[in-house]
Amino acid sequence: MSLTNASPSEAAKSAKEASHILATLSESARNDALTAIHSSLIAAKNDILAANARDLEAARLAAEHGQLSQSLVSRLDLGKKGKWEDMLKGILDVRGLDDPVGKITLRTKLDDGLELTRVTCPIGVLLIIFEARPEVIANIASLAVKSGNAAILKGGKESTESFIAISKAISAALDKTEVPNGAIQLVTTRDVIPQLLDLDQYIDLVIPRGSNELVRYIKSSTKIPVLGHADGLCSIFLEHSADPRMAADVIVDSKTSYPAACNSLETLLVQESALDTLLPTVAEALIAKGVVLHCDTKTKTALSAKLPSDISTKIEDAQSADYDTEFLSLTLAVKAVADIHEAIAHINAHGSKHTDAILTSSSDLAEQFMSSVDAAGVYWNASTRFADGMRYGFGTEVGISTNKIHSRGPVGLEGLMIYKYKIRGQGHVTAAYGEGEGKKSYKHERLPL
Amino acid sequence: MSLTNASPSEAAKSAKEASHILATLSESARNDALTAIHSSLIAAKNDILAANARDLEAARLAAEHGQLSQSLVSRLDLGKKGKWEDMLKGILDVRGLDDPVGKITLRTKLDDGLELTRVTCPIGVLLIIFEARPEVIANIASLAVKSGNAAILKGGKESTESFIAISKAISAALDKTEVPNGAIQLVTTRDVIPQLLDLDQYIDLVIPRGSNELVRYIKSSTKIPVLGHADGLCSIFLEHSADPRMAADVIVDSKTSYPAACNSLETLLVQESALDTLLPTVAEALIAKGVVLHCDTKTKTALSAKLPSDISTKIEDAQSADYDTEFLSLTLAVKAVADIHEAIAHINAHGSKHTDAILTSSSDLAEQFMSSVDAAGVYWNASTRFADGMRYGFGTEVGISTNKIHSRGPVGLEGLMIYKYKIRGQGHVTAAYGEGEGKKSYKHERLPL
Repeated sequence: MSLTNASPSEAAKSAKEASHILATLSESARNDALTAIHSSLIAAKNDILAANARDLEAARLAAEHGQLSQSLVSRLDLGKKGKWEDMLKGILDVRGLDDPVGKITLRTKLDDGLELTRVTCPIGVLLIIFEARPEVIANIASLAVKSGNAAILKGGKESTESFIAISKAISAALDKTEVPNGAIQLVTTRDVIPQLLDLDQYIDLVIPRGSNELVRYIKSSTKIPVLGHADGLCSIFLEHSADPRMAADVIVDSKTSYPAACNSLETLLVQESALDTLLPTVAEALIAKGVVLHCDTKTKTALSAKLPSDISTKIEDAQSADYDTEFLSLTLAVKAVADIHEAIAHINAHGSKHTDAILTSSSDLAEQFMSSVDAAGVYWNASTRFADGMRYGFGTEVGISTNKIHSRGPVGLEGLMIYKYKIRGQGHVTAAYGEGEGKKSYKHERLPL
Repeated sequence: MSLTNASPSEAAKSAKEASHILATLSESARNDALTAIHSSLIAAKNDILAANARDLEAARLAAEHGQLSQSLVSRLDLGKKGKWEDMLKGILDVRGLDDPVGKITLRTKLDDGLELTRVTCPIGVLLIIFEARPEVIANIASLAVKSGNAAILKGGKESTESFIAISKAISAALDKTEVPNGAIQLVTTRDVIPQLLDLDQYIDLVIPRGSNELVRYIKSSTKIPVLGHADGLCSIFLEHSADPRMAADVIVDSKTSYPAACNSLETLLVQESALDTLLPTVAEALIAKGVVLHCDTKTKTALSAKLPSDISTKIEDAQSADYDTEFLSLTLAVKAVADIHEAIAHINAHGSKHTDAILTSSSDLAEQFMSSVDAAGVYWNASTRFADGMRYGFGTEVGISTNKIHSRGPVGLEGLMIYKYKIRGQGHVTAAYGEGEGKKSYKHERLPL
């Protein structure tokens, strides 16, 4: 890892060059580098925690002066129970994943002695822009090395001391391995994000990890493809045949198990015929967990009639903007819809293509919902909070993408790969094929992988 | 198909809405629509050819006044031998391809009664911007319907009459099918490309089909992902162990079988140790086909010594810009390199990531070249002109992509797909899983597809 005060463009150029070597390394060479990083971080623990303590001290001071939020200060702390161990374990977990490089996904015999294969390969150079949490740097470096991608890392300034200490350890480790040192670049100079976002000749993919504002800013400021999501506006459609207890459980989990997460529920659509039967049970369960409901007229009327008046203080009138709002808190927008068609149309118009669910006893309606809703995740009778790389069994997660191309939903190592077509011939020329006398035909025989 | 004089944003909005229906149609419904389009075009043949004749007449007039090139006029002509039949056959060919929608590519049992599947689905709304050739509209409409994507088509103004006639026939056909009419929108109003490129809330992918200038302009003018290639700067590295006859055949095919194609050879890199042995044979064969060589000092010196002086007029001094030039004509840049490392470095620095080849007898060097060169196609002892969807056996081709994400190389129907994750549960909630007493663990059992 290079800890660079070089210009962004020099850092990116050197990452590009390193990426061409990294792409050719064997699985064992890449895994050895992860082992070396792991050992090197263990050896440097004291230095890293001391650096982190300096970051933390500065952040606490800034927080006292109101320049930084307490939650950000808390996310900085590498000394927090389990955090250091989790960071180290994460490196070995990534090392243990299936090698994503060099997988053959298509093999076709074009003609005798002429074979086409499609082989997975790294994308090239990733630019990863992230905010405070210092442990992310080790996680990202591991993912990059495992997937054969070079990476340029730009972290939040609050963690600078921690980043520098960690990157020194990673750099020392890489020096003993086949992974070129330039493959992982930490950029610590300030205010360089606009310059980095301009380097589309070197950088192939930008992955922002941080607040909606960060992601939105990046998406609007670069021609380089961006993998990620700005919004997570997840919806559930409560259909009238759903089991009431199940519905309450799933909706409570979706809304309250981690309200600040992008896969949390923000809008509940209730079928009109379920307003008196299902909604009261669900609303009571939500209110018991501290959720404030922003209801349209129909759902509010139904609830006012059914619920004891002392809890109706938790019910407020919805504004139309509520149905386009990612609350990230214990607030939920609630709306009545006539049927599944209206629910689907609402979600396709107001959702963020992240994760949406239907609760119903009808498998026909469930399948209709899942094929009609345009989102990375479409669920039947399950919490939206399952949208997560670890829960999906991917072993690791780069982030969750709401993009419509390349990778969608929780993105694991596979999402950091592209492919190339290889042809192995024996001097074959295209002019030999075609219609007419003496011309050959392609065989196009699918071969086993 | 809607033939719209609506605003670009109304057209795009209506395509988006139609895309949500199109995405849910069965394979047979989509195939039936292709059958209907095919019949409708046959029935409207006279009208369409009459409209095309009017376009042609106007274009000939413009060409006489020097406002249009003769080659463009020729590409307009639907009456040219075989063109109409090819257009019709293309629709049935696309209909006959494997259904790309709804393929299950991952199935995982997360827990008892909780299953995750990854299913291919259409991307959504494609914006396809193309130049003169009027038959492209039928081809694109077929690809869109087959892949379940809505499409907005913006053609060159020279073909307007033909487009309108074809789109009327397609529109009449779709009216009798389940494919919503708004799924295919032809925009004929002028000067709307900048407005269309701005509609990232409706349009998911832009596919330009036309000149380098068109593609480059589009890539630099939109935040919507663009699938395609601006340049096709293909290189061959001639290694000293290559068979001379084979090398000459492959290089001649790569350069001369269709010099204006994007997969044609533009730069020949010759190993220094092969300057006296292989290069003269290759150069003679190229010059016999009318190729002009732009040589660096080393290759020129070697050729001057070996070749008869009367053909040395075909050898010119290379300028450094030649190694970054897509000639698209019978001109070839030639350069000596010390070894495979220099060849790889040259290609990774100057190439366009389209298709590059090595000619060698060494399988070790071939594998090294193919893993080190960062391009969509990397070939060993085969012509670069094999880079083509039909030749690869894809049945059809949307274009060739030099992108680093999503789709690379010749793009068939598969490149127009993305996927969604479906979870089918029985009321499962995430809070039930984790560490600690009473908590469950994920099973993450890979299931057969």
